[in-house]
Amino acid sequence: MERTLTAQLPQRVGERVRLLGWVHHIRQLGSISFLLLRDRTGLCQAVTAEPERFKLNQIQRESIVELLGRVKPEPQARQGVELELEELKILITPVAPLPFEVNRSRKKLNLKLDMLLDHRAFSLRNPEFGAVFRVQAEIVNTFREFLRQAGFLEVHTSKIIAAGTEGGTALFPIQYFEQKAYLAQSPQFYKQMLVGAGYERVFEVGFVYRAEDHATSRHINEYLSLDYEMGFIQSFRDVTRLENQLLKVMVEKLKNNCAAELEILGARLPEVGEIPELHFRDARAILKKDYGRNTEGMIDLDPEAERQLCDYAGKVYNSEFIFITHYPRKTRPFYTMWDPDDPEYTFGFDLLFRGLEVTTGSQRIHDYNMLVENIRRFGLQPENYDFYLEIFKYAVPPHGGLAIGAERLTQQFLGLANVREASLFPRDRFRLTP
Amino acid sequence: MERTLTAQLPQRVGERVRLLGWVHHIRQLGSISFLLLRDRTGLCQAVTAEPERFKLNQIQRESIVELLGRVKPEPQARQGVELELEELKILITPVAPLPFEVNRSRKKLNLKLDMLLDHRAFSLRNPEFGAVFRVQAEIVNTFREFLRQAGFLEVHTSKIIAAGTEGGTALFPIQYFEQKAYLAQSPQFYKQMLVGAGYERVFEVGFVYRAEDHATSRHINEYLSLDYEMGFIQSFRDVTRLENQLLKVMVEKLKNNCAAELEILGARLPEVGEIPELHFRDARAILKKDYGRNTEGMIDLDPEAERQLCDYAGKVYNSEFIFITHYPRKTRPFYTMWDPDDPEYTFGFDLLFRGLEVTTGSQRIHDYNMLVENIRRFGLQPENYDFYLEIFKYAVPPHGGLAIGAERLTQQFLGLANVREASLFPRDRFRLTP
Repeated sequence: MERTLTAQLPQRVGERVRLLGWVHHIRQLGSISFLLLRDRTGLCQAVTAEPERFKLNQIQRESIVELLGRVKPEPQARQGVELELEELKILITPVAPLPFEVNRSRKKLNLKLDMLLDHRAFSLRNPEFGAVFRVQAEIVNTFREFLRQAGFLEVHTSKIIAAGTEGGTALFPIQYFEQKAYLAQSPQFYKQMLVGAGYERVFEVGFVYRAEDHATSRHINEYLSLDYEMGFIQSFRDVTRLENQLLKVMVEKLKNNCAAELEILGARLPEVGEIPELHFRDARAILKKDYGRNTEGMIDLDPEAERQLCDYAGKVYNSEFIFITHYPRKTRPFYTMWDPDDPEYTFGFDLLFRGLEVTTGSQRIHDYNMLVENIRRFGLQPENYDFYLEIFKYAVPPHGGLAIGAERLTQQFLGLANVREASLFPRDRFRLTP
Repeated sequence: MERTLTAQLPQRVGERVRLLGWVHHIRQLGSISFLLLRDRTGLCQAVTAEPERFKLNQIQRESIVELLGRVKPEPQARQGVELELEELKILITPVAPLPFEVNRSRKKLNLKLDMLLDHRAFSLRNPEFGAVFRVQAEIVNTFREFLRQAGFLEVHTSKIIAAGTEGGTALFPIQYFEQKAYLAQSPQFYKQMLVGAGYERVFEVGFVYRAEDHATSRHINEYLSLDYEMGFIQSFRDVTRLENQLLKVMVEKLKNNCAAELEILGARLPEVGEIPELHFRDARAILKKDYGRNTEGMIDLDPEAERQLCDYAGKVYNSEFIFITHYPRKTRPFYTMWDPDDPEYTFGFDLLFRGLEVTTGSQRIHDYNMLVENIRRFGLQPENYDFYLEIFKYAVPPHGGLAIGAERLTQQFLGLANVREASLFPRDRFRLTP
């Protein structure tokens, strides 16, 4: 008999079916016994009045079993159906005690993060932890689908590079045969080159690497970067407007395709209207005036400032998102276009969401001579960037782009306390396994 | 005025439009002058009887220009339309001589591969070279869409690992803070762990790394691996059957969505019927009998054997694809399930396509004790694989999977001579840039 998935049961009422999955839970309620089966699509209860016949009290949790039985309506049960157990076969049995009670709620489990991550694959059997990556897959897929429809080409650019994007700090060195190489910090150079290659609009989903020392709840050293870059823009607002539309579509997609996961996780989706924007100068003034911050010499936002500006956006604009634009020139990389009318500031921006930076982007410099000059101004050697600079000699259109941290975006959508919870196998200062 | 893309022109006949793009070519034909404009969607000719008015003879090729004019039907032109030039504005001009004539055909250009790759971004402006990655994007997208529809979850697993999949050979070392780490050779362990985590069916699109010395036309050291892994299988044939269906869908998608690119490249798509399969033992017999090979002690296929077996598949099965199954146990990694009825051979297979291996896969060992024992048999230490082995203690279903090399598949679909042509920024023994 073909396997039926638990999610298909409501369409099979009255039929005899065959289920496969893990034993999530077994319990007795008066004269009736329940076996809760878990497969990739959810949970289903199998019931019997003859627990002895199936030796239910001898079955270990997390065993893999095959169940045969008839599907019957049961308003009290998940999906309104349950299985009347007729046959049960144990296929595979655990050979060691379980590290923790994977069938309990996150809250009751109250696991230390390290415990969770040390046993990552096992922990994902918990429906709550498992749901995080179903939501993430939807986020990533929506990113791609939206951009494909907007005429962007998906690209895959090398993560092994001879020189860093921003001058050699925070890079992981690799021994590449006889040469020294590094793990890429971002696909920045490549996506700009591919705009100039005539593709005009490109996006990439790929890991990037930052050898940063800090061990905080918002940093991992390998993260999934959702990048896009677009040519023939009028201003950086073409880039931010597109992200605003993307986020609208993303929330709709999550609402429609991840309702069960969001419910399991108790997550509340944000409303995405027209996302407000604040010039960095104004953001600084607000931090000083409304939040009593000392903004003397402030050229970047610390985590506290990000939270405060999101608080402000909530109060004044009723928005959980806010673009901070025109970051000072001193804090932005050499390829960032500055504002010709106000050259202390750039056309660089961040998107803050529920108190956390989830996107960084800008309009870029597209003029060859201006770019070479700015590399020098940053104290770097244009010769080291020949492979990047070359295409700018042959006419590259005005362009801009951004990068979204997939784990941070997942974290903020789902209200997770630590970004590591949104990475399947996170890498940090101290963690290299599993 | 809004920008119109060249591909939209057939819908705009009679209208006045604004085009943006690169100057692909300029030529005079009697009293009429033509400017061929290239944008991300294709080419369009603008015509004028007044070349002096627009100073056409002073415009450098590859300049970025803005054209205004009226769209009129012209049966001789691309898409049956052309632009009657009314205004022309040069926006950006190359500041250096072009490295080669990018508007000529690949064949006429006759570039050395190194020249092509040294100027990779520029070379992609050539419609033929540029088309390769539009086809690749469609291949990759079809892989994902097909698997999503089959209930697979997209995952992203770490590429920084503490130990290799197959025992430490051919790994690129990374300095990971104070620790030694390596670039992942495949997501093998992780995708198996995620099947066992309860996701049952997972896929991943991501780079993997092989520090292999050989510099051949079929090897690159960083390649895009299209991986899937599926639980609750009956046999390895569940895995190969799914790939057979995937390839059918892929050819259909390419036919429908990449017709222009395939035409530009002169590529012929294969017919995908039911892909034949040959037991390794039989393949060996055929190589000996039909191709005069010395198969004494042959436990793997060399490139010559792959070509010969594809030749055989063409003649006998009229197929450009062939699965070679049941590879000998000695050549397959420790996690490969062997055939219990014929334990010299495994449930491991390769897919050959037009003379080249494009897929490797197998049914895996899912029993914890069997796996530990086999690791020992391979002379490896189970303790080094604790992070991988743990989930097998808690019941993992029978499963199998495979990995497709995205560049090789692109290469074979398009008939490219070297796999590097199917990688945007290839990394090989000697190449680290661009």
